[in-house]
Amino acid sequence: MELGLVFLGSSAAVPTRNRGLPGIVVVYRGSLVLLDAGEGTQARLVLAGLSPLKIAAILITHLHGDHVFGLPGLLQSMAMLGRRSLLLVAGPRGLYGFLREVFRYTAWLPPFPLYVAELAPWEKLRLPNGFKAIAFPVDHGAVPALGYRLVEPPRRPRISLEKAKKLGLRPGPLFSRLQRGEPVVVDGRLIRPEEVVEEQPRTIIVYTGDTRPTGSTVEAARGATVLIHDATFTSNMAREAHEQGHSTARDAAIVASQAGAKILVLYHISARYDDPEPLLREARTYHPRVVVAEDLLSLVLRP
Amino acid sequence: MELGLVFLGSSAAVPTRNRGLPGIVVVYRGSLVLLDAGEGTQARLVLAGLSPLKIAAILITHLHGDHVFGLPGLLQSMAMLGRRSLLLVAGPRGLYGFLREVFRYTAWLPPFPLYVAELAPWEKLRLPNGFKAIAFPVDHGAVPALGYRLVEPPRRPRISLEKAKKLGLRPGPLFSRLQRGEPVVVDGRLIRPEEVVEEQPRTIIVYTGDTRPTGSTVEAARGATVLIHDATFTSNMAREAHEQGHSTARDAAIVASQAGAKILVLYHISARYDDPEPLLREARTYHPRVVVAEDLLSLVLRP
Repeated sequence: MELGLVFLGSSAAVPTRNRGLPGIVVVYRGSLVLLDAGEGTQARLVLAGLSPLKIAAILITHLHGDHVFGLPGLLQSMAMLGRRSLLLVAGPRGLYGFLREVFRYTAWLPPFPLYVAELAPWEKLRLPNGFKAIAFPVDHGAVPALGYRLVEPPRRPRISLEKAKKLGLRPGPLFSRLQRGEPVVVDGRLIRPEEVVEEQPRTIIVYTGDTRPTGSTVEAARGATVLIHDATFTSNMAREAHEQGHSTARDAAIVASQAGAKILVLYHISARYDDPEPLLREARTYHPRVVVAEDLLSLVLRP
Repeated sequence: MELGLVFLGSSAAVPTRNRGLPGIVVVYRGSLVLLDAGEGTQARLVLAGLSPLKIAAILITHLHGDHVFGLPGLLQSMAMLGRRSLLLVAGPRGLYGFLREVFRYTAWLPPFPLYVAELAPWEKLRLPNGFKAIAFPVDHGAVPALGYRLVEPPRRPRISLEKAKKLGLRPGPLFSRLQRGEPVVVDGRLIRPEEVVEEQPRTIIVYTGDTRPTGSTVEAARGATVLIHDATFTSNMAREAHEQGHSTARDAAIVASQAGAKILVLYHISARYDDPEPLLREARTYHPRVVVAEDLLSLVLRP
């Protein structure tokens, strides 16, 4: 697929028979960005048929073990597989120290250039796949925790066939020139790109990591194509959810609705839900398009 | 089963579609001892139907990532599952620092008593399941690396029915007294336990972790019931194996043969062997009873 998501793990805190720990791959034109790296991420990449060598960046939401214990092993496997290209690993403060100490005690250093970035809330960065990322603050209690808003690079505009026809323009090489932003002359008449091209909407992917419902997520998820939101419990356990720095399916759906996100993916599902139907039913009361994440699910955004 | 082994992962360095990273469970009367804890160990315990709460001790051979990156997540899952009982984690020097730093950066401390022991070569310890363990030095290059010899606690002796019959003794309550080591009087004649009991052989399990073939393994594996030995490659790759601190299947079989080990398990299988038949064929030239480990294989020692 040109653009989409592959969910590697979808459980909360503890892996179950069906759900592994958090890890989401953004696939874009053969390049991968990994969001969180729970234990087992590298094994699930193998199962999903995705090469760790295609990963250009890894974004970590927070340094709780279930989101980060798959990171060192993944880096080592990249090395074993012969990686030589730069890897960006970004996350909250502490990420560098975590990796440094783990490498120190396990007598290993990456043989490829590893760039570790500790991000401040609302810090922006450009990812190697061309996406713009914004790290937004979420609320997961005492630990620094970030969500990520990822915006696709500008897309080649489409030519409106209707408008082109009115101007006597037929599909052909001139189309490409107009799409590249160049004016053309047809039958002695100058046609400027803006007369016929239509901007293509950019895909916006937002991932919260672990969080209570927050206004910062509503802000960061404005106009999102997909919002992947913590939905650890159903709302009958709202108190437990909020005490532990998590959200309910209802919370997630309300945030998605307030932000105007098109698709909501319920994520970080507690082991108590063998059947995720109650989470789905609850969220659909507040938002029309809801999916519950499951392991190795592909969400195709452009085929 | 009363006594046996369950192989959780059996690959070398990198997980494959069929093989996970190292982890072996010694099952003894409902209590578990885990040998190494590669990434994914906790997920494979779930698949094997073994509760992490039944683990009484974890023995780590060396601090390379593929043998230890599953440890922090397993400890956290034990806590999530409500563990309150003491856990012994033993391994080479550096183990304590590794856990301390990982806990520090991921903002977590075990809510149950965790006893971390850094062992010197040939150090002995008594495991919570009653086994005697000896940590023997192996040769894996620059890092401190240990193998483990585990000896079953003394077994209740068996009564020789033949000898008992000759003394006019029939199966019944007196048998139990003799098995407990108490003399009895039958028809006015004193019978001492040593006249009728036969000691039962104790099971000895030896695991090398990663190592070149070494004399210390031959010494530690004397009379072993099972020797689980590094067998990363076949002998056409002996040079690579030894350079990287590993053994070939041939090396493993020769060590097993020299030590007089009954069963040899080839372990730590390189990803290049989709079909482990060549490893098996090679080892069988030097040792009569060879098994290639595979994930979730149970090796029953007493049903």
